[in-house]
Order: sequence, then structure tokens, then C-alpha cells
Amino acid sequence: MAARIEEWLEAGKCRLVKEPARMAEEKVEFVISLGGDGTLLEAARAMAAPGIPVLGVNLGRLGFLCEIEKEEIFPALTKVLAGEYKLQRRFMLNAAAQTAGRTAQFTVLNDVVFVRDQSCGLVTLQANLSGEPSVSYPADGMIIATPTGSTAYSLSAGGPIVSPEVEAILLTPLAAHSLSARPMILRSDEEIEILMARGEKCRVTFDGQEELYLHPGERVKVQRSPLQGLLIRLGRRSFPAVVREKLMDRWHD
Amino acid sequence: MAARIEEWLEAGKCRLVKEPARMAEEKVEFVISLGGDGTLLEAARAMAAPGIPVLGVNLGRLGFLCEIEKEEIFPALTKVLAGEYKLQRRFMLNAAAQTAGRTAQFTVLNDVVFVRDQSCGLVTLQANLSGEPSVSYPADGMIIATPTGSTAYSLSAGGPIVSPEVEAILLTPLAAHSLSARPMILRSDEEIEILMARGEKCRVTFDGQEELYLHPGERVKVQRSPLQGLLIRLGRRSFPAVVREKLMDRWHD
Amino acid sequence: MAARIEEWLEAGKCRLVKEPARMAEEKVEFVISLGGDGTLLEAARAMAAPGIPVLGVNLGRLGFLCEIEKEEIFPALTKVLAGEYKLQRRFMLNAAAQTAGRTAQFTVLNDVVFVRDQSCGLVTLQANLSGEPSVSYPADGMIIATPTGSTAYSLSAGGPIVSPEVEAILLTPLAAHSLSARPMILRSDEEIEILMARGEKCRVTFDGQEELYLHPGERVKVQRSPLQGLLIRLGRRSFPAVVREKLMDRWHD
Amino acid sequence: MAARIEEWLEAGKCRLVKEPARMAEEKVEFVISLGGDGTLLEAARAMAAPGIPVLGVNLGRLGFLCEIEKEEIFPALTKVLAGEYKLQRRFMLNAAAQTAGRTAQFTVLNDVVFVRDQSCGLVTLQANLSGEPSVSYPADGMIIATPTGSTAYSLSAGGPIVSPEVEAILLTPLAAHSLSARPMILRSDEEIEILMARGEKCRVTFDGQEELYLHPGERVKVQRSPLQGLLIRLGRRSFPAVVREKLMDRWHD
Repeated sequence: MAARIEEWLEAGKCRLVKEPARMAEEKVEFVISLGGDGTLLEAARAMAAPGIPVLGVNLGRLGFLCEIEKEEIFPALTKVLAGEYKLQRRFMLNAAAQTAGRTAQFTVLNDVVFVRDQSCGLVTLQANLSGEPSVSYPADGMIIATPTGSTAYSLSAGGPIVSPEVEAILLTPLAAHSLSARPMILRSDEEIEILMARGEKCRVTFDGQEELYLHPGERVKVQRSPLQGLLIRLGRRSFPAVVREKLMDRWHD
Repeated sequence: MAARIEEWLEAGKCRLVKEPARMAEEKVEFVISLGGDGTLLEAARAMAAPGIPVLGVNLGRLGFLCEIEKEEIFPALTKVLAGEYKLQRRFMLNAAAQTAGRTAQFTVLNDVVFVRDQSCGLVTLQANLSGEPSVSYPADGMIIATPTGSTAYSLSAGGPIVSPEVEAILLTPLAAHSLSARPMILRSDEEIEILMARGEKCRVTFDGQEELYLHPGERVKVQRSPLQGLLIRLGRRSFPAVVREKLMDRWHD
Repeated sequence: MAARIEEWLEAGKCRLVKEPARMAEEKVEFVISLGGDGTLLEAARAMAAPGIPVLGVNLGRLGFLCEIEKEEIFPALTKVLAGEYKLQRRFMLNAAAQTAGRTAQFTVLNDVVFVRDQSCGLVTLQANLSGEPSVSYPADGMIIATPTGSTAYSLSAGGPIVSPEVEAILLTPLAAHSLSARPMILRSDEEIEILMARGEKCRVTFDGQEELYLHPGERVKVQRSPLQGLLIRLGRRSFPAVVREKLMDRWHD
Repeated sequence: MAARIEEWLEAGKCRLVKEPARMAEEKVEFVISLGGDGTLLEAARAMAAPGIPVLGVNLGRLGFLCEIEKEEIFPALTKVLAGEYKLQRRFMLNAAAQTAGRTAQFTVLNDVVFVRDQSCGLVTLQANLSGEPSVSYPADGMIIATPTGSTAYSLSAGGPIVSPEVEAILLTPLAAHSLSARPMILRSDEEIEILMARGEKCRVTFDGQEELYLHPGERVKVQRSPLQGLLIRLGRRSFPAVVREKLMDRWHD
């Protein structure tokens, strides 16, 4: 597939940059992501700082994020090269973890997932909002997700589906040992702090890529990033359409 | 209580207007709501057009919306009269129902609830977003709620808790006859249309106050209202605090 | 369809009784239910006392209970007439309502549903088990279901799927105004009493057919019936198969 | 506490056996479990084969299983020594894992938990019932629980509360990547087989104590054990009472 695209682009006298690391300095017009939603996420995250939009071409099973299927690639490229597309801006989150005296920074497009280490028991996570304690419960963990991430792990954990254009952050409990824990929707500019109040060891993963460990008393601050993931939209897969296709089941057919 | 407040206000040389209908033309500074969340909702809705803020004094059981308890009334009034308060703006929804050839308009601060008439079977409701069909399932009904309404009926039906400052609209299924129906969070400026696709008769209630009936093919359009409910906040009951107090249970104590 | 079956049976020298009321006294060998799950439920309930098994022929959409589709009718009848079938026994519930000084008795194969009258507010229902108060919450209502009824209304309300051979009774809350209400599984010989503790008016429906109204202080006792619904099984639609077919969705395809 | 009990028993001329390993051969009348629900589970499991009942004394936070609090110990022992108690029988599960060519056997009173290894992605677990495929979905995992285990991890994962006297097994999905996965209630004599259909590595834990790893194609058979945990009941903490105390929350107070 990559070879056919390269040929097609060369025939059209387009310059192709293959090394991700050089895309920004070469000021490419857009990036083609060949793969699934995970590949697209990675590309969109990396291209957010230089502000380069990404076209997601789905090579896998039906995804939520990719704009086109592989057989649609050449008509789609023609359109994109002619500028006939829309940009969809997906907001991202910055997470700053303070562990063992060091601070580490991450940017995510989907979610920050807190989950007890499998060798340990439950963890009690406390969410502080604008500096004030809000919820706290023993649990397997907690998910802080963007609207983009609402259809990823958060949905499995019982969270709602959030339209990608809503400016809000999800906080979804993961197997809470509490009957009253509920998914919560917070302002996109909320200052969220997750404190590990009790337990032994809590893994934190960032878009499922990078990870670190929290110990009691340690915390992660999560806030909206000034950067945005830029997705190329050709007007084919709207939010209502994606939901319609994903939400069909056979019980009531 | 009302008598004691009257006395207190007169002693302070304040003018008191008792008739709701005259509050707007008399240009009152603020309105005192004595009762529960329901009373406050009604006052805030009525005072939204003239732009008059409302102080909710809770005379009932602990509510989500009222700012103060009855024993706090006089210190609170002193503060409000001195202008020492913040305004919280709660967005509202406009609903336009087209039934039997007529159009009826309603404004709600909590929710528009669609529920099958109890003498009839399931209804199939279809939600169109920006004119495009999205979800559709046979169910007892569907709830369209504001963030303010997220802790009312929608919460009982399985919806998430939405911070009052989030700009979003909830769509929560009510006992859907479908395994895949999920609560959804939509943009606050989304153009939502609920179409009664199948069934016999569907009741629609607006903030639990007014009601009408839908028949197959009829629809209700729901959109953000240009008006806002104005609540007086004295800095005592923040969103994190309300959640913290409401979400305690005894399982993990 | 009915005409073709009649013809076929006559050709085979079988006696056909068409009037439901005369089936018991005529000592028919089995009953054919033409319709959906609702028709089958009605037949099985009526034939439980005389102990006559029922063959469910599905004329509607795919149901949980009917054994065969309409195009399979004649091979199926041949088998049944040759005695090549299994009997599946579905336990039923007896409900005794004490309202306004009178007692009314009902037998159900699916469920007893308690739901607030739509003209009224929430009802608080209290479940007493073996005479002892157990759960109690304000809600839209409560469902007491057999395993057979677990895939009907209870499933929409969030209840689990119960294998038809489990000896247990479900208690499923309906939009409870309580964060801690959960579906409960009780012994099949449990003495369940549902008391209307607070509210105005509560409808009670029995297999969705008959109904009555409860007022505060009134109660309904629910217990296992000595009778059983008898369904003819031809070995084609096992519980795992029904679940497998019903539980497919497209999210993870 | 242990010292005070020892003293009290000696004063009453009772023989005390301290070593768990010698309890069976010394034919003790009953076992005292000092700790929380976990300690009680361990004792009841170990004493199931010799048929020795266990009195659970709660030293921790309020548990579901322990019969008495520590301050009630001496009146309780007086009663138990006088034979004034009831035995509650809790059924247990046998799990036989076939991994890497070996078979390992475990007995559990609470649950068998299947969960993807944290270093790996989702696992697809398929449940076969009586040899026939039933449900299958990508997920974090799956829980097979007894009624005793229904108020442990299964409840956190969204499972129903099952009365300890119900003869049934729960199958509760753990963060299923499928909108249609639901908790299921199976016959207590069901032959359940969990097959790891896809994924990399799946941890299986038995009452949270022992563990092993499954790889694709490997499976665990779960069936009712012929043994039963024997709990001493003094008539104080019935199932309705435990539910009533656990299910209170403050939302509707």
C-alpha cells in the first residue's frame, strides 16, 4: 500500500517525506496514517505541535477515527491535495506526574488511565477539582479521557459516548468498590488532580503508550493541552453516522 | 418563614415584591426561592427572560441546586444585599414540538423527557443530530437533559454526572430494548430532533411541569435557549462539594 | 398459516381443538402457539394447570422463547407427534395483591412489574424477604421476574441474563432514585413482599396483561407457583445458542 | 484478642488447637476466624474437606461474611459451645486449568477471575456452557463467581447481588469491549469452560490467592465442588439485613 501511494504521489509530482522525524522541519502539508485508530492517534499527537493535519486511512477493522478505507485512498488524496477538506480539531490533555521527586510530562489524545498494579490490591484514588476534593473510592482504577477517548477504554468501563466537538473531560471509574461511583463530565478547562490516597502501587498509562507508577501520596495533574490533534475530514464520516454504525445490535431487530 | 423574611427585609428598609407576575416590571434585584430544587427551577426559569438572579433557600431535604439551608437565610441575605455573591449561569433548552399540525414551545432548565404512554407498548425514538439520523431504539423513552438536569431523572436512568459549567447536552436512554444504547453527550449548540418512529403514543414532559403527546411521525426539536437561569452563589456549595456529599455510600466505609 | 396447519393435521388424522377454553377438557396432547413470545407466554400460562405442553411457532421477529420458525412447522409437528421432543419446565410466580380490602391472585411466567402511575411522582417500594425488610428506594418502579422474564423488561432495566433452568427470582430496580440500588437474585422459594411505602399510586402489571393499582401501605406478595409452564423443545435452540445469537454486536467485529 | 480468647477457653476447660494444619486431625468442633472476610474465606475453604464449621469474627471494617464483631466474641462463643447456632452451607467451585500440558486444580468460595496481563492488550474469552459456545468478547477479563462472591469483585464489575442460598453461578464481564456483554446467571451444576480464544496472556486468580497464566487455546473448566464452606450463624446477620445495611446511600435521604 505504502509503495502504491508513493508511486501515485510521484506521478503527481508531489514530494513525499517518509521519516516521521523530518516531517515537521520539511513543513509537509499533511500526513497520511496507514493503520488503525492507534496509528492515527500516534500521528496526530506527534503532528499537533507543528500543526500538521493527518489523514487516517484504515487498514484494520472498522475504527472510530479513521476517515477513509484503503480502497478510497486515491480519490481521497486528490481531494486533499486540492484543499477540499475540513479540519477537525481534537483537544488533547497534558498530564504532569510528580513521582519520586521528579516531574514527567505527557500529552494524550485519548486518555490517562490509572490502574492498580496487578500484583497489588485495590487503590484509593481521589480526584481533586480546582483544588477541592471531589470523589474518592477504592477501585481497580480511574480513566481521564477526552471526547476522542470516550469511545475507547472509557466506553468499556461504562462511560458515555461524547461527541468529539464537546469541550469536556470524562472521569470514568474502573470497577469501583463503591456502589455510588458514576462517570462524570467535567469542564475542559478544569484543573484535575488525581491523588493516590491509599494502596500500594498504581500504574498510569498515557494513550496506552507510555507508563509510570504512582505510590501513596503521589499525584498526577491533568489539564487541557494548548495543542490540538488535527484530523482531515472529507465529509464522509460524521459523528451521528459513526454512532449509528457502532450502536446497532440484534436484540431489537 | 416567609413572614420572618418579610419582617427582616422591612426592618432593613428593603422593598419586597410578593407576586411573581410583578417581579419583572418592578425590576427586583433578586428573587428568593423558598422550597426545594423544584421551586428553584421554576423561579429560575421564570426569571431568565428579565435576567433576575434567584437565591435558592432549601426548606426540604438536601437538594443539588439550592445554595443555602433555611437557618442560614439572614446572614445570606445580608451578603446578597451587599452584592457579595457570584452569579452562576445555567444554560437552558428550547423545545419546539410539532404535533397535530400545531407547534408548541417550551423552555427547560432540567430536561425534556419522552416516555411511552403507560397504556401503550414500547416506542421507537430516533434522534437526528444536525439533520442526520444517529441513534434509534425501542425503549420506554429518552431523556434530553442539561448539565443541571444530569443529577435529576437522567441519573436514575443511568446517565453520567455533568458539571454545571460544561457546555453540553445529555441524551440518556430510558430502559432501552437494545443492549447497545448508551448515554451520549452532545454539543450544547447541537440541533437535536427526536422523532417518534414507531409505537402508539409518547408523552413528552418539560421540566416535569408541562406535557403533550406525540404520535408516530411527530417530532420535537431541542436546542440551546438564548436565555440562562441565573443562580446566586455565595461560595459555599461548589460542584466538587455537592458531588462529594452525594456520592458517599457505606460499602467501602 | 392456521388453515394450512389444520389441513395438514386432518390429512394425518389428527384431531384439532381450536377453542382455547376447551383444550383442557378435551385433553389435547399439546398446544401450538402461533405468534411471538407474548402469545406463547399466554398459552403456556393457560396450559400450566392442565399440564399441557406448548410448541411455540414464531411468526414475528426473532424471539427468545419460541422454538421454531414458521417454515419449520411441518417437520417439527411430525417430530412432536412421534413424541420426539423434550419438555422444558419454566417456573412461574404467584402474586397475591391486597388492595382496598380485597385480595386478587395472579400467575405469571415472566414478571410482576411495579411502576409509578404516570400522573404521579416517584414511589418508594420496600422489598421484604421472609418477612424482613431488605431494600427500599424511591424509583420509577421495580420488577420481580422469573428466569424466563430475565430477557424481557428486566434486561432493559439493567438486570442480568438468567439461564431458564436456574431456580431463582430476580428483583430489578427501575430507574431508582438511589445510587446504590442493584439487581438482586433471590431464592426461588423466597417469600417476597413488595410494600408501597410512599408515593401516590403505583401500577402493578402481571405478565403485561392484567393490572391493578397500589396505594401507600398496600402490598403484593410474590412466591413461586406450584404450577410450571411446559415448553416443547426439539433440541434446536439451547440457552447458550440463544445468548450467542442475541449478544452479538458490531463494536468489536 | 487471640490471647484473651485462649484464656477464656482455658478457663472454660476447652481444648484449643492453634495450628491450622492440625485442626482436622484433632477433630476440632469449630474454627474461629479472626480478621476480615478474606481470613474467613481462607478458613472456610480449608475446613470444607474435614467438614468443620467456622465462626467469623470481624476485626476489620464491616464485612459481608463475618457473623460477629470483636466485642461480641464471648457471648457468641458461649452460644456456639452450647450448640445454639445454625450452619450455613456455601457452595464452592472447582476449577481445573489445562495449561502448558499440565492440569492444576483449585477450589474457590468466592471467584475465579480471568484478567489480561497488564503488559498485554485485551484478551478474547469464550465461555462454553455444557460444551456449547455461548458468549465471547474482547475484554479486560471475566469473573466466574459463587453467590458468596457476588458481593466481592463481581459487584464492582457490575454484577448483581445474589442471595447466598441461591444455587447458581455468576459470569460477569470485566470491562468488555462489547456493548452487549451482560452479567449472566447460570445453573450451579453447569459445566463452564472458559477458553482463551485470542490475546497474549491472561492471568487467572483463584479466590485472589493463587494464580496462573493462560495462553491462546488454553482453557479452565469450572464446576460446582462437592464440598461446601460451613459458616456458623447465630441468627444475627440475615441476607436482607446485610443488603439493607450495605445498600444505604445518601442521595435519597
